[in-house]
Amino acid sequence: MSPALHPDLEPLTFLLGTWAGTGDGAYPTIADFAYGEQITMAHTGAPFLSYMQRTWSLADNRPLHAETGYLRTSRTGTGWRVQLVVAQPTGIVEVDEGVLARALKDGTSCESIVLTSTTVARTSTAKDVTAVRRVWEVCGDVMSERLEMAAVGQPLQLHLEARLTRQDHDNDR
Amino acid sequence: MSPALHPDLEPLTFLLGTWAGTGDGAYPTIADFAYGEQITMAHTGAPFLSYMQRTWSLADNRPLHAETGYLRTSRTGTGWRVQLVVAQPTGIVEVDEGVLARALKDGTSCESIVLTSTTVARTSTAKDVTAVRRVWEVCGDVMSERLEMAAVGQPLQLHLEARLTRQDHDNDR
Repeated sequence: MSPALHPDLEPLTFLLGTWAGTGDGAYPTIADFAYGEQITMAHTGAPFLSYMQRTWSLADNRPLHAETGYLRTSRTGTGWRVQLVVAQPTGIVEVDEGVLARALKDGTSCESIVLTSTTVARTSTAKDVTAVRRVWEVCGDVMSERLEMAAVGQPLQLHLEARLTRQDHDNDR
Repeated sequence: MSPALHPDLEPLTFLLGTWAGTGDGAYPTIADFAYGEQITMAHTGAPFLSYMQRTWSLADNRPLHAETGYLRTSRTGTGWRVQLVVAQPTGIVEVDEGVLARALKDGTSCESIVLTSTTVARTSTAKDVTAVRRVWEVCGDVMSERLEMAAVGQPLQLHLEARLTRQDHDNDR
């Protein structure tokens, strides 16, 4: 049985659930690749969403990336801002802040979050990632995801693009 | 069925499993408190351990803190160094680095990790945490955990102390 959603999370309701799909990755320093992805956004009744993500190779199912963290909101005079903190197993942590947006696309109401890194920090042996921009757009049960990254001397540019569908609204996994 | 442990994680084998127990919290700016805690350290075959932690009130079982992240190792000329990246739902991220140690205590072989933050970063509304020091010591199936913290203008000092016992070595939860 799920606890009641904390009122601070009302603006993020559209993200809740488990999402799965596929994506494409590209960067000037590596070969293009395709991946499977699963995201779970869950809550405990406290004023944060937990975020768990993992990806795998579509070729042989081996695990690729993973990341984990939390989303929260803060109130402004006129609405909400959104915060994301993320840890990555490559030895990178990220603090992102951003805004919510709403749009009508082909008659479907879509909600999105646009987040830009305010800090990217790393362990002494991790790759030099300097900035990240993340967009999550949800239209009904379809999530479009974009991740732009500045790393290893390259300017901020599209790195990952995925399309996921909501598997369930279950908060217990 | 668990995948084979990545060789880079051999020095961290002693952490694997699910751990549960209780702890005590104190800080000059807050009232003392007691908490229940569960930690899971798991792996996927990739060169990192995933770390999931949650705590709850011993008085009424309500969720208190949670944190999540990853551990990895790096080789030095003479041994290993350990890295931890953590995201906290309070809007804080942490990069810690440190060393492994071994000691004999009352005839039991104990292994420990001592980690010091190299970065603590936060969202615009999070509490001002500036430094963290973490010690995880495992003697058989008992884990002693200490967390020191410098925050809100206070110097680095003991904040949390817990004693957990290993519930299982299961890697699948």
